[in-house]
Amino acid sequence: MNSMNEIAEELLKADNFLVLSHMSPDGDTLGSSTALIRALRKLGKKANFACSDEVPEKFSFLFKDLENENFEVKTIVTVDVANPQLLGSLQDKFEIDIVIDHHSTNNVEANFRYVDGKSASNTMIIYDIIKLLNVEICKKIADSLYTGLSTDTGCFKFSNAGSQSHRIAAELIDLGADFKEINRVMFDIKTRGCMLVESEVMSTMEFCEDNKILCAVIPFALLKKTGAKSEDLESIPSLIRSIEGVVIGITLKEKEDGTWKGSVRAVHPADAGLICQAVGGGGHRGAGGCLLTKNLEESKSMLIKSSTRHLKELSK
Amino acid sequence: MNSMNEIAEELLKADNFLVLSHMSPDGDTLGSSTALIRALRKLGKKANFACSDEVPEKFSFLFKDLENENFEVKTIVTVDVANPQLLGSLQDKFEIDIVIDHHSTNNVEANFRYVDGKSASNTMIIYDIIKLLNVEICKKIADSLYTGLSTDTGCFKFSNAGSQSHRIAAELIDLGADFKEINRVMFDIKTRGCMLVESEVMSTMEFCEDNKILCAVIPFALLKKTGAKSEDLESIPSLIRSIEGVVIGITLKEKEDGTWKGSVRAVHPADAGLICQAVGGGGHRGAGGCLLTKNLEESKSMLIKSSTRHLKELSK
Repeated sequence: MNSMNEIAEELLKADNFLVLSHMSPDGDTLGSSTALIRALRKLGKKANFACSDEVPEKFSFLFKDLENENFEVKTIVTVDVANPQLLGSLQDKFEIDIVIDHHSTNNVEANFRYVDGKSASNTMIIYDIIKLLNVEICKKIADSLYTGLSTDTGCFKFSNAGSQSHRIAAELIDLGADFKEINRVMFDIKTRGCMLVESEVMSTMEFCEDNKILCAVIPFALLKKTGAKSEDLESIPSLIRSIEGVVIGITLKEKEDGTWKGSVRAVHPADAGLICQAVGGGGHRGAGGCLLTKNLEESKSMLIKSSTRHLKELSK
Repeated sequence: MNSMNEIAEELLKADNFLVLSHMSPDGDTLGSSTALIRALRKLGKKANFACSDEVPEKFSFLFKDLENENFEVKTIVTVDVANPQLLGSLQDKFEIDIVIDHHSTNNVEANFRYVDGKSASNTMIIYDIIKLLNVEICKKIADSLYTGLSTDTGCFKFSNAGSQSHRIAAELIDLGADFKEINRVMFDIKTRGCMLVESEVMSTMEFCEDNKILCAVIPFALLKKTGAKSEDLESIPSLIRSIEGVVIGITLKEKEDGTWKGSVRAVHPADAGLICQAVGGGGHRGAGGCLLTKNLEESKSMLIKSSTRHLKELSK
């Protein structure tokens, strides 16, 4: 592990960068990549971007006037990439030189590594590094850094949104970050597929145990019917848990082969990980998962029984 | 209009306060009231709270150990109350001494008035006043101030969430504000009634004009069927507008007498106010409203036609 100063010095020494984001790229990995590339270019260096997956349309504004250029790559940097597998198809193509990450579990091998698990977003680290590089933070860099900060804290809603994340947000807003539009695009737009699935799921879900347990089912056929994509379903487990009075939210999603992926979300003091462990899965307190190979009725019954038992244990 | 210093001086001089919040109280008026009452009590003064309506359960934590006491009231303060009508049944009961508000349109008469329309939340003003009073901000005051700040900025998502709101949030978090739990209660919990109405509305809404216009209908019978309350419907107009590609979101809500309340939400450059004006209503760019007395089909058709015309005008 290196100091942030050592990382900054290495960035100043090296050139011809390729900055890698993780697969299924999100606001933090893309915000980190684009901010760093812009900063390196401002220093007169060459820097390109690569990711195993396509960049979702809603992040395209981060890449405005940032086309890749033609040069021989010499220095590989990963940002917000917790492990080598998250590089997807790029995994075995490069030897990594510099790792910059905020996942304390980071195990990517490199000559230079800076990992700060206490940072709410990786862009908060990039912000500090850019300051060390003595590069002026322009509006576009501010947009990139704010995007990572806002998306990784659930727009400052999550428990990681500590005072430092607000202090940096304030700086970025003063530097021109278009927080209103960024937040609109990141948080306010719902796809039609998402809306159709949510509607169907909400009208069919079942309450049990005095409404403390809520169980929703997403049959594979529903995806075909609504044209929803897998990412349209990401909001469902949290939605289930957010209903007033619900302590344990269960989502059963049918896979193409007819097996069921169970996702459990729990409100403290209930423990989603323990509920899933009892049926062969795992997880942590807030969220757990399991794979169930029986038919729907049996699979559902297994998870509801495990949840009911757990609630009885808690009330002892 | 007085300076903030004059307000602080008057608060230090006076005693036996009654702090009034607006009717249908929200996080900002209640956060302002409870923070100010706690600060005044820390100065050894007497201070009570009053509101024409009951405080919703989710705000009850703000009032912990803050019961009203017995004393003769001498000084009346309103916080976050933009006009006298918003005092509800308390409107003609008191002469107001001190007004503290962040609505630039404030027209409450009083001997001392401080109104700052640029403040994202009224608690931001109360924060500054408490500093002038030289009262230490304890965890409970920080909770109150953060609650107003977070709810009035949509958890830092809205366009009013400028850098100063983040700077104060950072201070309050450092002073112990339980932002994680406050945000969970304020933003993550959905009532069952809200969920049931949203589900029904989403499954029946109609897209027109190449999906740019989306129209949702909430019949009066649906409220009875789902047991939803009026406040459970507040999220619907914004929900409609948030669907991908929608430029104009129309919500028609049936009133008990069979007339229809139309709510229009528009994405820039569409103008909801103009669309509603054309059918006898009004509003501003983002949101407009109107009352329609024809039957559902005719009322809906009027609003959709007005929206279609507006879109054609825009595309000229």
